[in-house]
Formats: sequence, C-alpha cells, structure tokens
Amino acid sequence: MSQPADTPQPPYYAVIFTSLRSGEDPEAYAQTSQDMFAKVTEQPGFLGVETARGEDGLGITVSYWDSLEAIAAWRADADHQTAQRLGRETFYRSYHLRVATVERAKPWRR
Amino acid sequence: MSQPADTPQPPYYAVIFTSLRSGEDPEAYAQTSQDMFAKVTEQPGFLGVETARGEDGLGITVSYWDSLEAIAAWRADADHQTAQRLGRETFYRSYHLRVATVERAKPWRR
Repeated sequence: MSQPADTPQPPYYAVIFTSLRSGEDPEAYAQTSQDMFAKVTEQPGFLGVETARGEDGLGITVSYWDSLEAIAAWRADADHQTAQRLGRETFYRSYHLRVATVERAKPWRR
Repeated sequence: MSQPADTPQPPYYAVIFTSLRSGEDPEAYAQTSQDMFAKVTEQPGFLGVETARGEDGLGITVSYWDSLEAIAAWRADADHQTAQRLGRETFYRSYHLRVATVERAKPWRR
C-alpha cells in the first residue's frame, strides 16, 4: 500500500471509495481496516489497492479488479458485508463509492 | 477537498493520480499543488476533485470530468504542463496516472 499499484495493461476495473471518518471507535476501525486489507488481496480477480487518508479525515481507497464479477463477489463476501455495516453504523460520516472502467494507464518512475 | 466530491449521475470520467513524493523541495511542491487545485476547479467540464496523502507519502488525487476532451484540455494547459514537468523532475519518486469511465456511483451520508 505504500506505492502506486502495479496493475496490468487496461482495460480493468477500479472501485474508488472516498470516505470521511466519523472519528468513532478508532480501535475497531483500525482492526476492521487491517482485516479487510488482508482479505481483499486474496480475492479472485484482485489486481491491487492504493489507499491514503489525509489529516483532514478524508480517505481514498482505490482497488483494482479484472472483472465486474470479481467486484460483485467481494461486495457480497460475508466478512466484507459486516465491515460495510459497521462503516455505515459507526466509522463513517459520509462516503462515495464509484465503480469505473480504467481505459488508459501510465505508470512512471524515476 | 475535505469531503467526498458531489458528482452528478454517471457516466462521467475520472483521472486517478497516485503518487509517491520524493520529499524534495516541499515549499515548491506545496505552492504548485495549491496553484493547480485553484486552477483545475475553473476548467470547463470539471466536476470535482478528492485528494488525500497518507503519512507514508502515498497520495491519491481523483478528479472528475464530464468528457475526455475536458481531460485532454486540462492536460495540455500550459501551467499544468509546467507542473507536470516539475513533478517528474523534482516532486515525485513515482506515480501512476489512470483515466477511467465511472459507470456506477453511490453516495451515502448519515
């Protein structure tokens, strides 16, 4: 998670999850986050993930996938469903979830 | 920038810019960043922007646009071109730039 994800040539899919923390129950948030990151990387069709949260509380997590079916399967995962419920009940003040098709990509490094 | 962007119904376009800072010249980076954020919001076809940078140096900025032409015009903007050059020469160790079509979106707030 500490560098841009090394994804294949497009097309592939991105789930852009932008959230504003409520600030409630930070310990449970940290544990749930850690559990979900560990689990998402093992999902079929998972290509990579990037995440950042700024000091103002706005966080952006982008996960990359090889199909819409893989995204749907992860969304329906039982542990993930529990995490989503906790997110709405406790962790987040607001969020915006977007599903997108990545059409072009240009990685660069020095 | 301190909350999820209030974008219209899809489809629209997203530019996902993930970067790892070099740590060089933080004053010039801060100024260039501030200038670019002020300018991008005035571009034709601009719908919104979200940005976050974590303590590990990974930053994610997602800008939203109503057309690929609007994205191309912003990429070709002279001040933005200068900023892109500074990014490669000084500010970034690596980055990944992705252009995507947002197909579905679900905003949520308490």
